[in-house]
Amino acid sequence: MTPHCGLHEVQYEPIVRRALEEDLGRAGDLTTDALVDPQSQAVAHLVAREAGRVAGLAPALSAFTMLDPAVAVRCHIADGATVVAATTLATLSGPARAILSAERVALNLLGRMCGIATATARAVAACRGTKATVVCTRKTAPTLRIFDKYAVRMGGGGNHRFGLDDGILIKDNHIAAVGGIDAALARVKERAGHMVKVEIEVDTLDQLDRVLALGGVDAVLLDNMASDTLGEAVRRVKGRFLTEASGGITPDRIAAVAAAGVDLISLGWLTHSVRNFDVALDFQYR
Amino acid sequence: MTPHCGLHEVQYEPIVRRALEEDLGRAGDLTTDALVDPQSQAVAHLVAREAGRVAGLAPALSAFTMLDPAVAVRCHIADGATVVAATTLATLSGPARAILSAERVALNLLGRMCGIATATARAVAACRGTKATVVCTRKTAPTLRIFDKYAVRMGGGGNHRFGLDDGILIKDNHIAAVGGIDAALARVKERAGHMVKVEIEVDTLDQLDRVLALGGVDAVLLDNMASDTLGEAVRRVKGRFLTEASGGITPDRIAAVAAAGVDLISLGWLTHSVRNFDVALDFQYR
Amino acid sequence: MTPHCGLHEVQYEPIVRRALEEDLGRAGDLTTDALVDPQSQAVAHLVAREAGRVAGLAPALSAFTMLDPAVAVRCHIADGATVVAATTLATLSGPARAILSAERVALNLLGRMCGIATATARAVAACRGTKATVVCTRKTAPTLRIFDKYAVRMGGGGNHRFGLDDGILIKDNHIAAVGGIDAALARVKERAGHMVKVEIEVDTLDQLDRVLALGGVDAVLLDNMASDTLGEAVRRVKGRFLTEASGGITPDRIAAVAAAGVDLISLGWLTHSVRNFDVALDFQYR
Amino acid sequence: MTPHCGLHEVQYEPIVRRALEEDLGRAGDLTTDALVDPQSQAVAHLVAREAGRVAGLAPALSAFTMLDPAVAVRCHIADGATVVAATTLATLSGPARAILSAERVALNLLGRMCGIATATARAVAACRGTKATVVCTRKTAPTLRIFDKYAVRMGGGGNHRFGLDDGILIKDNHIAAVGGIDAALARVKERAGHMVKVEIEVDTLDQLDRVLALGGVDAVLLDNMASDTLGEAVRRVKGRFLTEASGGITPDRIAAVAAAGVDLISLGWLTHSVRNFDVALDFQYR
Amino acid sequence: MTPHCGLHEVQYEPIVRRALEEDLGRAGDLTTDALVDPQSQAVAHLVAREAGRVAGLAPALSAFTMLDPAVAVRCHIADGATVVAATTLATLSGPARAILSAERVALNLLGRMCGIATATARAVAACRGTKATVVCTRKTAPTLRIFDKYAVRMGGGGNHRFGLDDGILIKDNHIAAVGGIDAALARVKERAGHMVKVEIEVDTLDQLDRVLALGGVDAVLLDNMASDTLGEAVRRVKGRFLTEASGGITPDRIAAVAAAGVDLISLGWLTHSVRNFDVALDFQYR
Amino acid sequence: MTPHCGLHEVQYEPIVRRALEEDLGRAGDLTTDALVDPQSQAVAHLVAREAGRVAGLAPALSAFTMLDPAVAVRCHIADGATVVAATTLATLSGPARAILSAERVALNLLGRMCGIATATARAVAACRGTKATVVCTRKTAPTLRIFDKYAVRMGGGGNHRFGLDDGILIKDNHIAAVGGIDAALARVKERAGHMVKVEIEVDTLDQLDRVLALGGVDAVLLDNMASDTLGEAVRRVKGRFLTEASGGITPDRIAAVAAAGVDLISLGWLTHSVRNFDVALDFQYR
Repeated sequence: MTPHCGLHEVQYEPIVRRALEEDLGRAGDLTTDALVDPQSQAVAHLVAREAGRVAGLAPALSAFTMLDPAVAVRCHIADGATVVAATTLATLSGPARAILSAERVALNLLGRMCGIATATARAVAACRGTKATVVCTRKTAPTLRIFDKYAVRMGGGGNHRFGLDDGILIKDNHIAAVGGIDAALARVKERAGHMVKVEIEVDTLDQLDRVLALGGVDAVLLDNMASDTLGEAVRRVKGRFLTEASGGITPDRIAAVAAAGVDLISLGWLTHSVRNFDVALDFQYR
Repeated sequence: MTPHCGLHEVQYEPIVRRALEEDLGRAGDLTTDALVDPQSQAVAHLVAREAGRVAGLAPALSAFTMLDPAVAVRCHIADGATVVAATTLATLSGPARAILSAERVALNLLGRMCGIATATARAVAACRGTKATVVCTRKTAPTLRIFDKYAVRMGGGGNHRFGLDDGILIKDNHIAAVGGIDAALARVKERAGHMVKVEIEVDTLDQLDRVLALGGVDAVLLDNMASDTLGEAVRRVKGRFLTEASGGITPDRIAAVAAAGVDLISLGWLTHSVRNFDVALDFQYR
Repeated sequence: MTPHCGLHEVQYEPIVRRALEEDLGRAGDLTTDALVDPQSQAVAHLVAREAGRVAGLAPALSAFTMLDPAVAVRCHIADGATVVAATTLATLSGPARAILSAERVALNLLGRMCGIATATARAVAACRGTKATVVCTRKTAPTLRIFDKYAVRMGGGGNHRFGLDDGILIKDNHIAAVGGIDAALARVKERAGHMVKVEIEVDTLDQLDRVLALGGVDAVLLDNMASDTLGEAVRRVKGRFLTEASGGITPDRIAAVAAAGVDLISLGWLTHSVRNFDVALDFQYR
Repeated sequence: MTPHCGLHEVQYEPIVRRALEEDLGRAGDLTTDALVDPQSQAVAHLVAREAGRVAGLAPALSAFTMLDPAVAVRCHIADGATVVAATTLATLSGPARAILSAERVALNLLGRMCGIATATARAVAACRGTKATVVCTRKTAPTLRIFDKYAVRMGGGGNHRFGLDDGILIKDNHIAAVGGIDAALARVKERAGHMVKVEIEVDTLDQLDRVLALGGVDAVLLDNMASDTLGEAVRRVKGRFLTEASGGITPDRIAAVAAAGVDLISLGWLTHSVRNFDVALDFQYR
Repeated sequence: MTPHCGLHEVQYEPIVRRALEEDLGRAGDLTTDALVDPQSQAVAHLVAREAGRVAGLAPALSAFTMLDPAVAVRCHIADGATVVAATTLATLSGPARAILSAERVALNLLGRMCGIATATARAVAACRGTKATVVCTRKTAPTLRIFDKYAVRMGGGGNHRFGLDDGILIKDNHIAAVGGIDAALARVKERAGHMVKVEIEVDTLDQLDRVLALGGVDAVLLDNMASDTLGEAVRRVKGRFLTEASGGITPDRIAAVAAAGVDLISLGWLTHSVRNFDVALDFQYR
Repeated sequence: MTPHCGLHEVQYEPIVRRALEEDLGRAGDLTTDALVDPQSQAVAHLVAREAGRVAGLAPALSAFTMLDPAVAVRCHIADGATVVAATTLATLSGPARAILSAERVALNLLGRMCGIATATARAVAACRGTKATVVCTRKTAPTLRIFDKYAVRMGGGGNHRFGLDDGILIKDNHIAAVGGIDAALARVKERAGHMVKVEIEVDTLDQLDRVLALGGVDAVLLDNMASDTLGEAVRRVKGRFLTEASGGITPDRIAAVAAAGVDLISLGWLTHSVRNFDVALDFQYR
């Protein structure tokens, strides 16, 4: 099985290339070049050291083949799969130098993406039995957003906006700048493109009532509300638009928030506070 | 005080630029452009929402001025400072649009760097009274290594290698590839450049004894050893080269490891498992 | 008045830079460098040679200042303005060499953008008295989409999708690939993100009826329909979602299509078949 | 037949790549990824919807293979060929997703280039029986000049300068800057490289006489002259250098201008006012 | 006097930027950052350590200001000037760190360009009293051609082709490929653009006679001919086109070759075998 | 034998690509495209015209395959080999156009690298019988450092620092800035990373004595010393750290300097004053 990925290579190749350049620097891998013969061949297994959700095999493995096309890659599992500890994810064979020199870049990519996918999968599991979808935010590592967002999808979550340009999200500062919810929604109605969805942030049920009275939004972000307030908000909205809970939702609160009936739960920490997933490369010399 | 930074602008400017492009996409900030007038001016304060160590002000603030040079930036604190919650780090004034549109890029940069600096500062504090220096590894977010390494320095830690090319670190896989410690050190002696330091990883005291017998290294990485084994290793080395503890050192073990007398403690999680530092932009409209 | 623009400089600067590099090549402006002294100063007026709508002043004028910051630029008009022939749009003063050498790049940018804006303004005028909005498509000059889309906005039109990633538009080929409208809408319902709008293309009123029965879309693209069929389609939709007329709508048909009551008229030729707007640089030597 | 092209891939690959990135954005093709299975295979024919001249097959088709090397491409015709409506230009087979996702980028490239080639071929045809060569100018879409110039060649036209650096063209503003034709030609004689050709623009027969008296040019650009004035100019030049008619030459005037005996007719509108050539991708699912 | 330069900053800025990135790497200037305080100010003089011709001040000095805009630069001399040893070319004042960290990049640029200019000036001097112009070739350091060609101009030499695309130079291998001089000139006559000059290489007087019989060239390259053969060639050409001596012309042969009456002498070693010009930065601490 | 190289393709590919773009410009190879048919095939031999040391085959040959993957490359020799004049280094076969068009880029790369390797090999030979290693400096062609440093290694030399960031080298200006050797070494001791080696420049034996008294360095650079002073310095150092002779060491002085017993001899002219190695492409048409 060759690695398949929802990301196009034209999208991730420049990032993997920059990561390799970053690690090789000007002089290349001093250690490997001094110790390992160019002819030396190796087989190496990419092994998960803990249980979790897999994401990022294609970009991670591309680091090896980008360094040397003679490295052969075999995937034993696909992105989105749940694995137990000690699962072999992929097997590499070919020039030992390239496998050793690209190892860290590959593991850094994979560890981050599997870490995000695994955390997402846990948040998704906490919502089981409710209609809540877990979504990420724009709080991603700078310039790595396509990886972070993809990993969330592989964890079973959904993606909120990819950037400032693919949806309108009216926040408190925008409301303040324009002079209130009424003015904000009036302007948006007049100016938003027809393919652009609109969401507005509210901090109180009073604000929510005003939005309900005015209409013109596709979703409402219920910011920093207690679980029972969220429940009351959902009741008032009555499905007229989507409800999203956001702000201060720690892992242990997810189930309660989901039970309040919201459609979406957005979690900044899925991507801004990543715990690395432990994955390693086990070598076997021939 | 303008933001000063150990990083040169030629180094970080391309990353900040890509981060802005990533967030603005093709259509720009739909929300701000629809709601906020081009003439609208604002003042905004960059405020730490928790206690910690500051890092990354210069690159983060450059996001605002790169978007619009009319934004004026005033720093109230310098990178490397320890702050309490609610500390105002910097004040921005100028076109409201630019401040709103660059906000997320700036906060993503700053949240990550302050998060790393703060975690580092805590690890450094745990070593107080010992001679141990906390250092980071190459387990950094792909393409963001200069930021991650810089943040560790601002947290009071040191940097291990920046890449594969600025030092030799002989790991278990290299030793296996070349056929043993003797062969590895012989090759390195013959091939290492005169400005290149050499470190070797050992897993056991027996391996350490072999390295002591052979010499020719500047440091030894003591991998995954219990604290008392580390102490014994330090005693055997007797200062002939630096000792570095590495592998599986959780926050609560740092003090014990440091007490074992090692020179260096390397912690992958400083940079591969970042907890975001909570920093926000408080607007004030004129 | 300095040029203001809905486009951020971080977005257009790399394109203008590449355009200058493209024109200067390796040897630079052989003619100007051979004939004009470095000290020579000039004043030049950017003049519209025909009536139309202005778009692109900021990127066009940036070509001069990018070549030499000593060129001073004064705008007499803003993007989006309607001008008569012989209107002076801007005045440049400074080193004659830079003004001469950047002239063609600036005029190429401005001629294309004003051309698109002017054509859009005419299409918009043809819709006067109806609720129809004129929108562009993704049929733009490769790599120049931000300019083409911006020019449409300055002409009073709206933007359809900026790319494949900011909206779902189900076309005939997608329907064929998935096996029919029912399957297509079912998949989209399950998989579309919550901030993503959905539009579907229909070729016949029967297909439209099926979409009406299934629901789940924000807009329907009525492809290549006669004006009276469009009218019937609008009546059947009854405002449940937006209606967009598309395909084969020549300038002389716009008014009739708009009169059919559609919400949107998309015109590929606004951007794929641009007529250059005639704008020139009139020099005045000091 | 694989597509052959006078353009080197190293020249056009970066532009095609940027065009794909522009269209895929961060999230990729939402529609195709939601609706079409990764395993789905398709055959698609690239079909000319109108009669004209073909140009740009290689770069256009590279969009598909760049997105997925598993797409197989077969060309049925070569650049420079004249086709009737409904001619199949090429056949693609392979992963349906890649073919659907790269379609617009490929068609935008091909539509523009065939459009330019077709317009050029018509202008060339209008000169039949005369010695006039149709040439393009530097009035090309910014950063797409290599495509625009190539398409003109495929239409049977010639290329004027590719940039400011591969020939000297003394225009009215240069003459004004340096103080007259005599000074201009004197400076050029002294400063032009030995591999650089020199052309000068004249607006009147008097200016032409002065150029004839001074010599030192390879060509003269006869700007905005009536057809009989052009004829008189050609007679006076007597073949001592090339004569180029330029300025205000609409399609219906080409034959008359050519009949005046000029060597070259330069037409800005070949590239600045492109009419898209109608080409489509017809899918056939397996 | 600020540095003026025939090169545009848009042309050289990316190269200087890459050179700085190359030298700073990821960790920056370890020595300067460890030793010199950020507040430390310095004055430094750029001094020629030998006699020669100056070229490259603007790009070289831009390295300092690119690193820190607070560095002030004053030029005491202009590119193209002849200097004696110990001449101060420019004075820098500002942050000591930036001056120290950019020093090597600046000196590498300047040493190479002054070296080329100086060697060129000597070759030009050897031609004094003849009509021969010294020109360079395409044998330049890869990616640094604009600098190498510019330095030749500052040395008083001329530039041959800047690339494969701004002139036709028919070499022996082309003649062999096409089957002889007759076929080569026939093809070129038919296919060369009207703004493109044509030169042909001949190895013998017989070949020259054939070129004279056929005509259609602007210059002839007389390859590897003895001085008296060159003289005979010049006599046969009788000024009908330019004559260029090339191949194996060592410094001590230049005068004799020039005396043979050729128009041009091309010297590959001007740019492929550069002797660095000795220039240094003398610091003065405040 | 396919070309093998200590440089990774990800490192050199962007430079070779830029070199090809630099030479092809916008219009490509006018001569070859006019004269040589696309179908024409050729065999060409890359031949050393003089005796020397080979370096750079892989990057040089990649120019051909980058231009056209149909060019087949066979290497007859490896980098680092010593060759006599007339040795065939490699054979190319395939499309004649690509071989002709990439020729100059390939030869420029190879001529420079073989030139550096050959000069290095001669310097190394002059040290035979001593323990001195010849090393290069940072005086390399801007942006081409990886090539220059690699060529030195192929010549049998060693590499000094690759940049400002992979070692500390305290020069006279640093000492002056910080106020003396004592302060410099104290600061470095406190601030240098544990994987960073430290070298200090001394101009006199007195300075050397101070360094010996203070310790804390890995090497000392003995600047501009006469051979007997160098000998005395070596005796005083007694192997406590490495000794490097630098400054003003002309080829004829190398043996004497090496005989003084220094560990390292650094030579700026290895890379700043390159003599091109004469290598040519001999065509053979089929």
